[in-house]
Amino acid sequence: MNDLLNKNKELVENRLAELLKIAGINETLGSAMNYSVMAGGKRLRPTLNILANSLLNGNLAETLDIACAIELIHTYSLIHDDLPAMDNDELRRGKPTSHVMFGEAFAILTGDALLNLGFEVMLHNAIRYADNMEAHIKAIQEIAAGAGAQGMISGQCGDIENEGQILTERELYMVHEKKTGALIEASLLSGILLCGPDEEQIKAIRIYGKNIGLAFQITDDVLDIVGNEKDLGKTVGKDRIAKKFTFPTLYGIDESIRIARQKTQEATESIRIFGEKADPLEKLAEFVLQRKK
Amino acid sequence: MNDLLNKNKELVENRLAELLKIAGINETLGSAMNYSVMAGGKRLRPTLNILANSLLNGNLAETLDIACAIELIHTYSLIHDDLPAMDNDELRRGKPTSHVMFGEAFAILTGDALLNLGFEVMLHNAIRYADNMEAHIKAIQEIAAGAGAQGMISGQCGDIENEGQILTERELYMVHEKKTGALIEASLLSGILLCGPDEEQIKAIRIYGKNIGLAFQITDDVLDIVGNEKDLGKTVGKDRIAKKFTFPTLYGIDESIRIARQKTQEATESIRIFGEKADPLEKLAEFVLQRKK
Repeated sequence: MNDLLNKNKELVENRLAELLKIAGINETLGSAMNYSVMAGGKRLRPTLNILANSLLNGNLAETLDIACAIELIHTYSLIHDDLPAMDNDELRRGKPTSHVMFGEAFAILTGDALLNLGFEVMLHNAIRYADNMEAHIKAIQEIAAGAGAQGMISGQCGDIENEGQILTERELYMVHEKKTGALIEASLLSGILLCGPDEEQIKAIRIYGKNIGLAFQITDDVLDIVGNEKDLGKTVGKDRIAKKFTFPTLYGIDESIRIARQKTQEATESIRIFGEKADPLEKLAEFVLQRKK
Repeated sequence: MNDLLNKNKELVENRLAELLKIAGINETLGSAMNYSVMAGGKRLRPTLNILANSLLNGNLAETLDIACAIELIHTYSLIHDDLPAMDNDELRRGKPTSHVMFGEAFAILTGDALLNLGFEVMLHNAIRYADNMEAHIKAIQEIAAGAGAQGMISGQCGDIENEGQILTERELYMVHEKKTGALIEASLLSGILLCGPDEEQIKAIRIYGKNIGLAFQITDDVLDIVGNEKDLGKTVGKDRIAKKFTFPTLYGIDESIRIARQKTQEATESIRIFGEKADPLEKLAEFVLQRKK
């Protein structure tokens, strides 16, 4: 699995570096965009996009910029999430967050610029593949819906409003499905939509996406706790756990892991219809479950 | 002129109200989006879009959602601009700003959601006018470029970095062209691009846009000073003037007004090639010059 992730990660990072070379922009803004986008990470969402595209023998070159755009949008959401007015995180992947490095004003504008750039990149790509333009627009629409007010942003709003609150199971699922699930689902959908999938295939990918999104968020929450027990110095993370109501808060760690495992199974079962083409996505689901921080 | 502005304003505001009815979003987010978008304003950018579209007998229904999307994007930029980390403005058009009403976290997310919604609206519109899809994508690209890192956002970055600095004439023009000019120019371009303009027509509209953008910003800066001399209670505005280097700082009020008048003239001259179809845009340029806050 690591080979597969690393191969796509390299592809995506090389292309991201090219896409970030933008002529005539404010120098600090350019540095700040580069700093956060190139700060590492698993590039999970772009990989999902590329793997979903390959289910129906898609053209990797055609979906690569969409994969990169999703990572730009994901990065913007992290920068804004880390702001003092939001989660107030000073570190991300062991490095100072954008507002620590460049100040709050630039962090806000850098996030804005990356969201906007995501769309610029996808629109430019749609023009390049003019024969398949309608499919491109529909793919971009999925990403816009996943990232926007109906998706990720409402999830983040829920996260803020729920701070210090006790949630029902239903509320917990809803926030997670929007906060992490919506963009993950859109990453997959946008990849396969370029290939003219039928209704059954779209449905299968949606189920895979919903479940892998939940599994990802649950294991993330579990890793936040397990990670912090080992590393008591990371007080920022500890504060977050105390404030946020997560799957481990509701079910405890063991039951949370069991749920994540069940979601992973539901995810992989749904894509069996693609035969052995689905192997990489099955392995990726397993990786999400087993990964370390 | 007021009739023309008011007619388009009503059209745009009615459509904006519809576009903001989004199912299944966080309730506070929905209120905050509505609050800022429906807070009034001249709806100058949408009007420019509609008038540019009508130069070549465009279809008003086809460009209306683009006009509205531009206003959504403009509103996002105002919300983020007003944040404590940016201009720290507590009032906009006499009403409390978004972060005063809904808190900083929600103001950031509301801005994000409006930028994203702008693209959602335009993509949906492109699918509706599938026969003219490539023209739509190119129109959306203009707006994305005007709003993004190469346009408005770099202008805002320049504004932040220049605070308290003395600028050269060249620097002053550059910040203004990006901060206000880029989205104004894109508003016009996106309107006419739906109608298959030739190179000469595109060039004429660009010249009009650049000049009217400058005239708008210069008169805005002049009105900021003239307005404040009459109304000494508005200390927020006064602080801003002291911190920001504007056309009146460089040239004084009278010379600034003269430059704005000259830019307006250059704007109107460039669109003479459209004959009497250009009358509304000529009148609008005159209105920008003569308006009161």
